[in-house]
Amino acid sequence: MTVNVLRLSHRLVRDDRVTTHVALVARAFGADKIYVVGGENHLKESIDRVSDRWGKGFEVELIDNWKTLVNNFKKQGLIIHLTMYGEEVDIIIDKIKTQVKDILIVIGSEKVPREIFDISDYNVSIGHQPHSEIAALAIFLDRLFEGKSLKKLFNDSQINIKPSAKSKDISVIKD
Amino acid sequence: MTVNVLRLSHRLVRDDRVTTHVALVARAFGADKIYVVGGENHLKESIDRVSDRWGKGFEVELIDNWKTLVNNFKKQGLIIHLTMYGEEVDIIIDKIKTQVKDILIVIGSEKVPREIFDISDYNVSIGHQPHSEIAALAIFLDRLFEGKSLKKLFNDSQINIKPSAKSKDISVIKD
Repeated sequence: MTVNVLRLSHRLVRDDRVTTHVALVARAFGADKIYVVGGENHLKESIDRVSDRWGKGFEVELIDNWKTLVNNFKKQGLIIHLTMYGEEVDIIIDKIKTQVKDILIVIGSEKVPREIFDISDYNVSIGHQPHSEIAALAIFLDRLFEGKSLKKLFNDSQINIKPSAKSKDISVIKD
Repeated sequence: MTVNVLRLSHRLVRDDRVTTHVALVARAFGADKIYVVGGENHLKESIDRVSDRWGKGFEVELIDNWKTLVNNFKKQGLIIHLTMYGEEVDIIIDKIKTQVKDILIVIGSEKVPREIFDISDYNVSIGHQPHSEIAALAIFLDRLFEGKSLKKLFNDSQINIKPSAKSKDISVIKD
């Protein structure tokens, strides 16, 4: 099973920081790959630099069009759209976990096309209050991996953090 | 017990959207109040508009200086700084929950002053990988409220969402 994220409708400049947060959350919470519609090279470069330093294994792909990806994915995997209008994550998550398929988690920004609601296998809400697609993705992955994604180990990192009550304790593994 | 959030070092324009997400997450995941250092009126206004529509009870206060707030809070409450360098949330959360005090959760952006590490009762990490203060706050509040913050009900809302597998189902309670 692979876990993939699709970030819809990235709007240049305006969405840069939020999309960067989405991508970093995807990586840190255990997804394998993010597809960003309309993202620019510097976005991919900055996430790739994080992987170089903190550990490899997460991929960023910039794409022009989500339709081809979603239609291809539909043939073999599970499409999960995170939306405040969907079914409650804590009710639906066990059903999702029993289906051992590749997963594509779709994250919108402002207005999500109707087709996404229709083509998705699950429209899932992380609460029904307005908040943040960044938080929604983190909570969904946390539930999917049963809290274990915070313990995910990354291969081939240059630095590691040693948890500390009062200091910034970084081990440099290699320069 | 009240749960409060302090958003440090908001930088004008550049941090607007991220700080808005932080505030919405604070509200949706059960905090009572957010203090934003250096935030502008339109930030407070936009969160207040969300509360008018989706339910009241969350407060935004713009402040100039975090030191007075933190020093006053230290006298009666618990200060928790979310940082990737801290102790692991899943190890420390039970200890935090036993202390029935008002809580101030401190959220930085780029560079957090050394004093925050020192004055905080707990420096808490949500994983040790770089990701997002928005995700960190969501996961911390989710752990603090044992997953129940997603079910929080808000008083006096104008609209509500009815969870749905395929549609956007909004009930208008009052115009």
